[in-house]
Amino acid sequence: MEFNSSIVEKAVDALASFPGVGKRTALRMVMYLLKRPGNEVAGLADALLKLKTELQLCTMCGNVSDAPLCSICSNARRNTASICVVEDFSDQMAVEGTGQFQGVYHILGGLIAPIDGVGPDQLSIANLVQRVSDGGVTEVILAFSATVEGDTTMFYIAKKLRDFPVKISCIARGIAIGGELEYADEITLGRSIMNRTEYRV
Amino acid sequence: MEFNSSIVEKAVDALASFPGVGKRTALRMVMYLLKRPGNEVAGLADALLKLKTELQLCTMCGNVSDAPLCSICSNARRNTASICVVEDFSDQMAVEGTGQFQGVYHILGGLIAPIDGVGPDQLSIANLVQRVSDGGVTEVILAFSATVEGDTTMFYIAKKLRDFPVKISCIARGIAIGGELEYADEITLGRSIMNRTEYRV
Repeated sequence: MEFNSSIVEKAVDALASFPGVGKRTALRMVMYLLKRPGNEVAGLADALLKLKTELQLCTMCGNVSDAPLCSICSNARRNTASICVVEDFSDQMAVEGTGQFQGVYHILGGLIAPIDGVGPDQLSIANLVQRVSDGGVTEVILAFSATVEGDTTMFYIAKKLRDFPVKISCIARGIAIGGELEYADEITLGRSIMNRTEYRV
Repeated sequence: MEFNSSIVEKAVDALASFPGVGKRTALRMVMYLLKRPGNEVAGLADALLKLKTELQLCTMCGNVSDAPLCSICSNARRNTASICVVEDFSDQMAVEGTGQFQGVYHILGGLIAPIDGVGPDQLSIANLVQRVSDGGVTEVILAFSATVEGDTTMFYIAKKLRDFPVKISCIARGIAIGGELEYADEITLGRSIMNRTEYRV
C-alpha cells in the first residue's frame, strides 16, 4: 500500500496492530474516522488513553476497576465465601453474564503456558492462596477454558490449595446446550459420560 | 455485557462504533491494549487524533495530504493532462497500486446516491469541471465501482464535461483476470462481449 499521507499511514499502522485487524480493515477504519466529527474521534482517542492512565486493578480480585476495590468486591450482597477463579476479565464477564454465580471472583491474568513463557509466578496465584489462607472462603471454583493451559493451571492451583479446608470444584465439561451428540468430538463425549449427573424426575 | 469498569465500557463502546466491529471484537481489542505498554496506546490515540487535527485535503485533487498540495499533484513527473476520477482515497490507492497510471487524480468524496441522500452538490464535481475548464487536460478517466451509484456518477460527470475538448473514458468492465467464464454472471459476460477488444498476434 502506498499512502499519500504519512498521517493516514501512521493511523493505519497503529490500527493494524490490533489482533485480527489487517491493513485493509485498518484503512476502512481510518476512512470511517475521517467522516466522523472531530469530537467523536477525540472521544475515541481519550477512551483508549484512559485505559492506561485511569484504569485500576481491584486490590482484592485483580479485576479491572474504576476504584481500588471493584464493584463486585465492594458489593455487600455478594457471597465472599465462594471465589470463582478465571483467566481474565472477559471470562469474568462471561461467568457474571450467566447470572448463576453470586460469589466473588479472582482474576489470574492468564493461564500457565510454558510454551509462551508464562509460569505460575507471572499469574496472580499467590494472591489467591493468600485470600484462601486469610480464611472465610469455603469454595474455590476453577472456571478455565478446556485447553491444555486451562487444565495445567487447574492442576497447579488445586495442588496449592490442597491443604486448606476449602472445597475445590471445576466447571462442568460436556456436550454444549443445543449441541448434537453426533457431531461432538470423542473426548468431550467421553468426558460427558464419565462425569454423568444423576437425573431425577 | 455487564462491565466492571466504566473506563473499559467506554473504550469498548468507542471501538464498537467502527463498521464491522462488534462489542465482542471491541472487548478483545481493549484486552489487547491493556497488555500493551502505555506509550504504544498513547501513540495509537495520537495517530487517530491527528487524522482530524493535522490531516489536510489537497487543494487540487481533494486527496488526503500532509501539505496543501498532495505528493502526487506536486510531483513534476506526473502527467497533469490526464485526470483519473475516483470515489475516495482508498480507490486512488488501488489505482496507484497498479502502477499503470502516470497522470493525476481527482477525488470525488463519494458517489451520487439519491437513496442515501448524496447528490452531485455534495461531491467534488464542480471542482473537477473547473480543473477541466482551466485547460491543459486532454483525458478524464472515470474509475468507479461497477454499481448503480458508479454508473449514475459516470453518466452525470460525462454529461457535465461533454462540451469540453477532452476525451472521457471509463475503466474496462469484464471478466476478472483469473476468472472462469463458466462462473461469470450474465451481465458481466454480456458486457465483456459487447466491449470486446481487437486481439493481434
